[in-house]
This record gives sequence, structure tokens and C-alpha cells, in this order.
Amino acid sequence: MDPFVLLKKDMKEKQEQVNIILDRYLPRKDEYPKEIHKALRYSTFAGGKRLRPYLTMLAYQLYKDNLDPITPVAAAIEMVHTFSLIHDDLPDIDDDEYRRGKKSCHAVFGDGVALLAADSLLINAFEIITYAEIDDALKVQFVRELAQESGIKGLIAGQMLDIESEGKKVDKKTLNFIHNNKTAGMINIALRFGALGAKAPAKELSVIEEYGSKIGLVFQIVDDLLDIEGSSAKLGKTTGKDEAQGKATFPAVYGVEESRKMAHDLTEQAKTAISTLGDRSLKLRILADHLLSRKS
Amino acid sequence: MDPFVLLKKDMKEKQEQVNIILDRYLPRKDEYPKEIHKALRYSTFAGGKRLRPYLTMLAYQLYKDNLDPITPVAAAIEMVHTFSLIHDDLPDIDDDEYRRGKKSCHAVFGDGVALLAADSLLINAFEIITYAEIDDALKVQFVRELAQESGIKGLIAGQMLDIESEGKKVDKKTLNFIHNNKTAGMINIALRFGALGAKAPAKELSVIEEYGSKIGLVFQIVDDLLDIEGSSAKLGKTTGKDEAQGKATFPAVYGVEESRKMAHDLTEQAKTAISTLGDRSLKLRILADHLLSRKS
Repeated sequence: MDPFVLLKKDMKEKQEQVNIILDRYLPRKDEYPKEIHKALRYSTFAGGKRLRPYLTMLAYQLYKDNLDPITPVAAAIEMVHTFSLIHDDLPDIDDDEYRRGKKSCHAVFGDGVALLAADSLLINAFEIITYAEIDDALKVQFVRELAQESGIKGLIAGQMLDIESEGKKVDKKTLNFIHNNKTAGMINIALRFGALGAKAPAKELSVIEEYGSKIGLVFQIVDDLLDIEGSSAKLGKTTGKDEAQGKATFPAVYGVEESRKMAHDLTEQAKTAISTLGDRSLKLRILADHLLSRKS
Repeated sequence: MDPFVLLKKDMKEKQEQVNIILDRYLPRKDEYPKEIHKALRYSTFAGGKRLRPYLTMLAYQLYKDNLDPITPVAAAIEMVHTFSLIHDDLPDIDDDEYRRGKKSCHAVFGDGVALLAADSLLINAFEIITYAEIDDALKVQFVRELAQESGIKGLIAGQMLDIESEGKKVDKKTLNFIHNNKTAGMINIALRFGALGAKAPAKELSVIEEYGSKIGLVFQIVDDLLDIEGSSAKLGKTTGKDEAQGKATFPAVYGVEESRKMAHDLTEQAKTAISTLGDRSLKLRILADHLLSRKS
């Protein structure tokens, strides 16, 4: 069977597992006060790919079959991701009306509700880690590392520099800073948490992180290329907007051809790195190819 | 000596201890990207009363002298408080230009920077708990409870309902919901964390919580009264604004005289409750009187 078909089946199954956990830990949408509960669930279940939790689960399954202990951690990473998208879309930052093929949170519920809904998702992410069936020392480590990776030395720094760079000509160093922090860092930590949760040996952990840092960049480069080439219908968000806003993108800094080549080379390097773990890394290799060739 | 003078001296000393911890755990203001680092420190050191961390420290000192193990936890609560003020002041919510006697964060740094600076303070709060010198089980408990109290079932719910109620005539139930969640809850958890950190006996913990829930409401009632009576210069924020915005306040729902009486009665009840802990609760009793009679 086509390896991509197999992968998509696996992704779909794990997506559903994550959705069950998200549904379990998010309050009902009819709870009081209603608007914010509706907003929370609207953005959480707006059809995301669940790439980050999928990575956590794949890394965990390099070592262990039963995903139950790690799924809340995977869901926590997705919550932080959704939080960052909602705040990014606010008029305070990108002012984007569409996300994942639907109206963005603030476009439906208003700025104040969207702001607070995202805040509560972020807060919920830290709470949900405490419910994972892992030992306390690991919970504390996950809380600390998730905070570091999503905070002022990670995701937030990337978003901040993204704002500052708008309309300016950015250099390679700035571009790398933005995307290492904003995208690659969270993708990497998703894999790292899966591996740490399964008590991966240190040497293998560093292989997994090498793979993660490379596919994280590929993910962003392909995102930037799709923004130029893709159609709004497939991507589910406003396309061509990066260029219009003068955003710091790989094609803008390296050119389209060079960006494509970078994505290709990084994918090969990621696959080579993870291959050292043998047959059990097959899904991660197929995933790397999928992230390179995806059209949405 | 005047008990208030003694109390103010103690508050000032503990404020300084909290400031040292905040300074230690927040990144330098000249770090990259600069704007957000400046914004973070601007709001954190804009002259807050540090009431919440002070409560954590007083509750802890009912049992133990050396505050070092609990001070990061106290600082974490202050970070969450500052986060909530910055987001509250944004145009998305209250659109307030002044806070603590200075221009509010977004008025100085812009909406996007203020939004992200507050996000990173919130995230940092969870991180800093992991550095406290307490056992892992307690760190996990604090992360979970801080998330619960500051999230969609606590502080955020209070803020949300505060927005929804603007310009409407609110009933007593709604008013209580808002302020139990928005103010009293965080004040209560500040005390609770101090007591839990010092391994307070369950029976005494419930006395401390009874005291906390009452002074939490007193704090809010007095805030509402000062908004009507106080001068902007003393309070350091725009006064008379609650009424202008049609905010849900105690004087609006109960009238000024009844609100004053409520604050007075709750203070007496709080003092009676905490008196059962004997002489060591003296500072908490003086503090209750101080919160009732404060003019700013």
C-alpha cells in the first residue's frame, strides 16, 4: 500500500485520540459564561492537523505501545499551539480573518472573548500535564520545558520578532530566529516530550531532536511556499498575505528555488538521522516526506 | 507603635524580597527582542502593592520563618496578577490608559507587544513554580491549582463575565460570581499556597481559607468604593470609570452604605476566623483592618 495512505490512516486514528482527550479536559460549551466556552471549543475543533501531538505520539511509540500516559501531554502541546494561533490572528497582531478554513476566533466571537479564550487554553495546557499518568518529576520537567519553549525565550520571542520585522527586509539570521522559535521549537519539543515520556536513552533522544529541528524548518519553509503557490481553499487561510504584509518568509529571503532545495535537503537529513533508530522509525521517515510534499 | 506602621514596614520588606525574585526570574530588559523585554519589566515593576505574594508569605510564616522556599511561588501569583491586568487594560477588553499611576503597558508599547508580554508573564509563572525548593508533588499541585484558579473556571471566567455585564444591570448573583472569580479567588489561593507550602494542618488550612475568601471580597468592595470616592492621583488609575462604563460593582448593586457595612462585617468575620490561630495570626488581623481602611 502507498506509504502516505498508511500514514494518513495512522494520523487520523491518533487525531481522534487527541480529540477525545481535548474534549475530556475542556469544559462543556454550554457552561457559564457561554460565549467563552463556545469560543474555546470553536478554535480547538476547527480542523487542525494535530501535527504536534502526532509527533509526541510517534516518538513515544518508538518505545511503548499504549499511548494513554502521554496523550494528555500531546494534547497540552496542541492547546498551546491553538492559543498562539488565536492571539496571532487578533487585530493586535496579524489581524487575520480566516484560520483553518473558517472564520478566526475573534472574527466570530469578538476580540475580547478570543483573547480570553486563548488565555484559558494556555492555562489549561499546564493543568492538563498534571493529569498525565507519568511521575511527578517528569510532570515538573514538562511544565518547565513547555514554559521555556512557549515563552519569552521561545514561541513568544518568535511572534514578537515576526511583528517587529513586518515590512522590513529581514536577514537570514532574523528569519532563522523567528522560525526556530515560532515553529521548529514547538515541533521539536513535541517529539522530545514523547521520547522523554517513554524514557528514551539519551543518545536516541538527541537523534530524535536532530530529526525534529530539521522537519520543523521544513514545515515552515513549505508553509511559506504554499502561501505563495497554494490556493486559499486548500490551505484554509488567507494566502498571498505573507508577501502583502511584508512577512519574514524563506522565499522572501532565499528565493523560491533555493527554499525548495533547502526543504528537500533538510528532509533527507532528517530521514538519515532518524534511520539510525532502525525499522521502528519508519513512520517518522514517511512523515518527513509527507511534510515536504504536502499541498495543504 | 501603631500596628499599621509595623505592618507597612513588614509589607515593604517582603515586597522587596518578591521584587528580588521577580528580577531574578525575568529576563534582562536589554535581551533580544528588546521591546517585549522592556514591556515585561515595565509592567512588573510599575509599583504594585504585591498584596497577593505578601499573603502567601504571611500564611507561610504562620508555620515557618525562612521564606526562601515559598518566595518563587509567591512571585508566580504576582506574575499571573500582572498578566491579567495587562490583558484587562487592552482595547480588546477595558481599553484603560492608566494603571498603577503610570501609562498602561499597551499605551506605552503598543497592543501587540503588551498582549505578548502578558502572555509570557503568564507562562513564566508556571515555570517559576518549578524552581521553588519544595517537593515535586507540591509543585504539581500548585501548577494544577494555579491553572484552575486563573483559568476558565476562575479568573478568566470572572473577566469574561465582567465584559458581558458591561452596561447591563447586574444582579447580586452575577456580581458575586465576577468578584469571587476575578479577585477573591486569587487572593484566597495566595494564602492557600503559603499554608500548603508550610504543610499547615487541614483544620487550620480551612480557617485560613475562610479568612481569605472574606478579605478577598473586602478588597474588591473597597476597590469599588475608592473608584467612586478616591482621587485618580492616589489610586493611580482612572477613577469614576467603573460607573461610566456601567461596570458591575458593589456600590452599583448594593448601594454605597450597604457596601461599606458589608466590607466592615466581612472584615470582622475574617479577623474572628483567623484569631483561632492565636498570636501568630496578628499580622493577618492587622492586614484585614488595613485592607478595609486603605485609601489607595
